[in-house]
Amino acid sequence: MTERPVPRDAAGWAAKVTVLAGGVGGAKLAHGFSLLPEVDLSVVVNTGDDLELHGLAISPDVDTVLYTLAGLANPETGWGLRDETWSAHAMLERYGAPTWFRLGDRDIATHLVRTSRLAAGATPTDVTRELAASLGIRARLLPMADRPVRTRVRTSAGWLEFQAWFVARQHADDALEVRFDGAADARPTDAVLDAVRSADVIAIAPSNPFVSIGTILALPGMAAALLDATAPVVAVSPIVAGAALKGPADRMFESLGGESSALGVARHYAGRYPGLVDGLAIDVADRSLADRIEDLGIAVLVAPTVMRDDGDRARLARDLLDFAGRLTPGTGRASGIR
Amino acid sequence: MTERPVPRDAAGWAAKVTVLAGGVGGAKLAHGFSLLPEVDLSVVVNTGDDLELHGLAISPDVDTVLYTLAGLANPETGWGLRDETWSAHAMLERYGAPTWFRLGDRDIATHLVRTSRLAAGATPTDVTRELAASLGIRARLLPMADRPVRTRVRTSAGWLEFQAWFVARQHADDALEVRFDGAADARPTDAVLDAVRSADVIAIAPSNPFVSIGTILALPGMAAALLDATAPVVAVSPIVAGAALKGPADRMFESLGGESSALGVARHYAGRYPGLVDGLAIDVADRSLADRIEDLGIAVLVAPTVMRDDGDRARLARDLLDFAGRLTPGTGRASGIR
Repeated sequence: MTERPVPRDAAGWAAKVTVLAGGVGGAKLAHGFSLLPEVDLSVVVNTGDDLELHGLAISPDVDTVLYTLAGLANPETGWGLRDETWSAHAMLERYGAPTWFRLGDRDIATHLVRTSRLAAGATPTDVTRELAASLGIRARLLPMADRPVRTRVRTSAGWLEFQAWFVARQHADDALEVRFDGAADARPTDAVLDAVRSADVIAIAPSNPFVSIGTILALPGMAAALLDATAPVVAVSPIVAGAALKGPADRMFESLGGESSALGVARHYAGRYPGLVDGLAIDVADRSLADRIEDLGIAVLVAPTVMRDDGDRARLARDLLDFAGRLTPGTGRASGIR
Repeated sequence: MTERPVPRDAAGWAAKVTVLAGGVGGAKLAHGFSLLPEVDLSVVVNTGDDLELHGLAISPDVDTVLYTLAGLANPETGWGLRDETWSAHAMLERYGAPTWFRLGDRDIATHLVRTSRLAAGATPTDVTRELAASLGIRARLLPMADRPVRTRVRTSAGWLEFQAWFVARQHADDALEVRFDGAADARPTDAVLDAVRSADVIAIAPSNPFVSIGTILALPGMAAALLDATAPVVAVSPIVAGAALKGPADRMFESLGGESSALGVARHYAGRYPGLVDGLAIDVADRSLADRIEDLGIAVLVAPTVMRDDGDRARLARDLLDFAGRLTPGTGRASGIR
């Protein structure tokens, strides 16, 4: 197979990396790439989790990536801002306004800027670029679409809005079905399609395959654009040793059909989007699953995938660059990986 | 003359007091009345200072009265909330968003609730009632109008929006002219007209006669309603010893024509709204002006009018009740006042 030259230093050119991301896991991996000096990073972010509350346009995954890349994320939670205060929240409670979705004071400023810029006619892509620039972020942060897409989850209590299920009910109800309202009328933005087409490496973050990555891939033309891309597509399993590192992905594999394991992740991508994922990074804890994943036509990288600190993030990003450099898109085979 | 029985205790009935108020001065006097157990209070509040910022519907005078009556006002400034935090403000600065109008975090919660309720079809009157109820306020807080009125001030720099002049430029420019955009199409709300008609006492707070009280009186039918009211109308001079206690009222008397004194206040009301003000409370420091004010047909109460603490507020409110009890509306004469 062909050895693809992935650039390693800043001597002349950069590796164009495009990450598909949900919230915390996506933000961490994107941050890892942003720490590599030779990487020219674009991050395509799920907007299916967006909501309106108190008249504010809130885009939780975009904000998580924004705050993380700016070095402002709350290290305890992964979402929200460090050194946050909660005065408005306390006052909203006093007014009897809905407070199930906790909004920090600094975070509210982001929503205020977004809401007023959108009202003035800016697109989500415009607003995100402006916010990122204000926070000194060099990477291109790209909402997946400029038209609204709203993820809904069916539970035994009926169809719920995503955040009603995820935050208000703490995803306690089993997800029986997922749909993406508006997706058929939305499309990936030009900036997203450019980022996919021009990438040297495309990385699917260890975000929820159903309600983060699945949302992005539900946009008309998005999966096709990834299949057509010249760059190898490498994914990181969000399941480690059978459990989701964060959120309900493990339980969703069970309730939606599948298996909560790195193999289940591979089967999910191979089954729903044949040929799209060229390689899958699985944690060292899941080493024993590598052969069965490769049997699906997906190359495997066994590496530490749990990102506890900035060093972990950068090392995983570096490992993925190396891995991608050994892949030819569509062949599903890497050489000398393990 | 007739002695009007103003109730003094809670044995059976209450004195219905309606206060016309701007911001801090109005809030303090309204608070004074609210401290008197026998008073059934309505406060008609100027909304000409309202603005939209970051997409938020902000009603500064209403909020000042709201916070003051709730016991939440910042005692240092008179406006804003005590124990306020400024995290959103700092973040808005970081985003390069306009921050000349400082919004505290707790204050933002008020604007969020107002904005989303208005967007849902509630009127300013509805929203204000809801906010006041949430904060445990018994008084009726009444925005003067439900339709927008926007005060503009002409300066040597041209016509400025009220808050651009007042806050952004710290009212450094002389006011050469004042107008109330939208006033002709607005009207006092039914609740305001009811509060005027049913009042036992109407008090005009020591608020700016031009851009607080003047705005309320610019509403079609408002001055007529006050003239028709059976209750005596007593005003409190916002000028003490020639100077405004707060804000630019003194300089406005000079630049708009008139005299910055309690006499100037009397002349202003008597000249623009003949017969409307029955009595004027002036500070003890201005005792020497009493005769000349009475010569205008306005009864005079000489009393301590500077409200430094809750005791001052309640005492002034009590003095005004006594004063009003000795007045017959339209006669401009009080008996045995000084």
